[in-house]
Amino acid sequence: MNKGEKSLIVQKYGGSSVADAKRIRNVARRVAKAKDEGNQVVVVVSAMGDTTDELIRLAYQVTEQPKERELDLLLSTGELVSCTLLAMALEDLGYKAVSLSGAQAGIQTDASHSRARIFRVDPGRIISELEKDNIAIVAGFQGVTQDMDITTLGRGGSDTTAVALAASLGAKVCQIYTDVEGVYTADPRLVPEASKLKEISYEEMLELASYGARVMHPRGIELGELYNVPILVASSFSNSPGTIICKEAFMEVRNKVRGIVHDINVAKITVVGVPDHPGIAATIFEPLSEANISVDTIVQNASIENITDLSFTVARNDLAKAMSIVETVIKSIGAKQCVSDPKLAKVTIVGTGMQNTPGYAARMFRTLHEQGINIQLITTSEIRITCIISEDRVKDAVQALHRAFELESAGRMKRKKQK
Amino acid sequence: MNKGEKSLIVQKYGGSSVADAKRIRNVARRVAKAKDEGNQVVVVVSAMGDTTDELIRLAYQVTEQPKERELDLLLSTGELVSCTLLAMALEDLGYKAVSLSGAQAGIQTDASHSRARIFRVDPGRIISELEKDNIAIVAGFQGVTQDMDITTLGRGGSDTTAVALAASLGAKVCQIYTDVEGVYTADPRLVPEASKLKEISYEEMLELASYGARVMHPRGIELGELYNVPILVASSFSNSPGTIICKEAFMEVRNKVRGIVHDINVAKITVVGVPDHPGIAATIFEPLSEANISVDTIVQNASIENITDLSFTVARNDLAKAMSIVETVIKSIGAKQCVSDPKLAKVTIVGTGMQNTPGYAARMFRTLHEQGINIQLITTSEIRITCIISEDRVKDAVQALHRAFELESAGRMKRKKQK
Repeated sequence: MNKGEKSLIVQKYGGSSVADAKRIRNVARRVAKAKDEGNQVVVVVSAMGDTTDELIRLAYQVTEQPKERELDLLLSTGELVSCTLLAMALEDLGYKAVSLSGAQAGIQTDASHSRARIFRVDPGRIISELEKDNIAIVAGFQGVTQDMDITTLGRGGSDTTAVALAASLGAKVCQIYTDVEGVYTADPRLVPEASKLKEISYEEMLELASYGARVMHPRGIELGELYNVPILVASSFSNSPGTIICKEAFMEVRNKVRGIVHDINVAKITVVGVPDHPGIAATIFEPLSEANISVDTIVQNASIENITDLSFTVARNDLAKAMSIVETVIKSIGAKQCVSDPKLAKVTIVGTGMQNTPGYAARMFRTLHEQGINIQLITTSEIRITCIISEDRVKDAVQALHRAFELESAGRMKRKKQK
Repeated sequence: MNKGEKSLIVQKYGGSSVADAKRIRNVARRVAKAKDEGNQVVVVVSAMGDTTDELIRLAYQVTEQPKERELDLLLSTGELVSCTLLAMALEDLGYKAVSLSGAQAGIQTDASHSRARIFRVDPGRIISELEKDNIAIVAGFQGVTQDMDITTLGRGGSDTTAVALAASLGAKVCQIYTDVEGVYTADPRLVPEASKLKEISYEEMLELASYGARVMHPRGIELGELYNVPILVASSFSNSPGTIICKEAFMEVRNKVRGIVHDINVAKITVVGVPDHPGIAATIFEPLSEANISVDTIVQNASIENITDLSFTVARNDLAKAMSIVETVIKSIGAKQCVSDPKLAKVTIVGTGMQNTPGYAARMFRTLHEQGINIQLITTSEIRITCIISEDRVKDAVQALHRAFELESAGRMKRKKQK
């Protein structure tokens, strides 16, 4: 923990915020402002724009199967470029700044290349730079193993770097700057009257992020919850206040549905006429898991004369691979056939207030029914209800649910017109 | 020193040899061949094509004065990209390869960013990779300070990395692969009958490199001489045998002029009417040195009545800056005026055999005179004579000297047609 008198903040800027020299200079001015306000500042950056995709493309020009260890060292260069440029831009404004690789910043990980987990942060170097009054600019998304090999953290990597540093440095807040203005009650592109939330709990944000909100990866949110790091999500292109993700949302009475999210990357497979005996699910799902296909919602119909139907969803781009595996399996288990629907979507309502209050599910189902929207599958957690519906009805569903749960005024801050 | 039974070779590939995915795969096949021949192989690579220039351009888009520490970390990414891609290409061919940053490879330097000097190589990691039967691919041009900051080695950096590794690993040879086929008796573009040398001594190569041969930077050659590492210079685009730089050239009688080099990046400044008293040279040259302008040849005419003329050469792109400094200085020392000539060139003959044999200088001057070429300045070392002449006569001078010193047959290997 940092024992300095100054308060310490960690800021993270995503790839679109540092996509070119002009945007990097813009970010430098924002960082400088945080420093001027008397904070010690640590900044985590992603790679510029689509640098990471370009590096991956380059690797695939050389080989069809890049080795993960080599790919990690290759990809780690993207964040080194952006962090050195941001340090230069800050020096140009007259601020002392020093860029640090993940290794230099003490981000120590296991050796699972391409999806490494942070097991320890040794913030010694950062602390010594802060004590020299430097702004520390850290390359996100990367770490180093005990053997000094470079790793990358996989999806949501830079957010995770930022929250891990905030936790180990005892930062007062971890600010995630991105190209959205915060967390909304629904996607403003579908629901123009959607409002931005001032605060949201870790739990609620985790559900929103897992069920379609693109604003932040669940991994960083989990880490924030674990170490109780307040996380601000805001835009790097405006001065709008953003949304705080923290332990407890408002104590006061408020709308118990906090937000609606949707995800159109959903395909469904139904295996028809499955003999219903123990072990049959494993026979179907094990080969999918071995093929690295993530199965989401699973629903088994009530069995009639020991014959049942089994439905489950997968990501759309996994559908073809999943179908070819399932088609092989059904022969061995004596199922009748399998059918698929590639054009589905999830619509989800989230809110901690739901857990002790009945009637939310009923209201959701009734609302969709009134719109003539057919619900294909349903899954729930204590603070979430998800319905799987046809993709072409998503907009109608989200708009109707937004009205039904009176979310127009929920965020208390009206959304500003987006540029 | 490596104590293994296998012989160890270090190969270095320049930026043009790894400029794109196709060329990287080509280099991988060459590395694989060296491995197949039973060697332990360490490969040093430069950044792809003009990556380094692009990164510098990016830095200057952000700031007019990039900080050297940040610029070093930025530029070091260029070699990380090429070394990871080469490792992937080798894996793709079925060879075990591992890419290493300069830091991982144990290249320890001082903290003079942008022009760091290697003070130690700790080859532990490379040796352990070689013992695991891996090919080690090392990012050239970079190192790490004791504080774990990344440095770059400046001009000739990757060659220096390669020779330093070869020295510390006790390699039997350091092979520098580039876009030329070796060292020629003269530039084949000027002298079609120029022949490639089979061997050349460190001393001779140092003079050739310092006076215009672009094939290898003097720094790597010096290091090779110091640790007695044989250096092969050859093309990565052909299987032509190249030139070996080593301790002793042929013992047998041979042509005592080994090669002719030229350099057209020469401008001359003459300060006219300088009062000739002690300290006057320092008064002129100190401010130039402070402005980081490298002064080459200096000639002072015999003094008449304590008034003399002083001529010296600088690189052409330093001329304007140098003139403005000298114009200020001449006022303070009471010199008459200064004049400049931007379009000069150096023509140099080199050969260890010259040192105990008279008549080489005379033959050079006579040859140039016969061509009607005016010699403006002359400088010599024990194994070198350099004349400064007008740029537009360079081709005539080099061709005439090549004939006069009978170099057509010197290399014993006729140059193959260049593509």
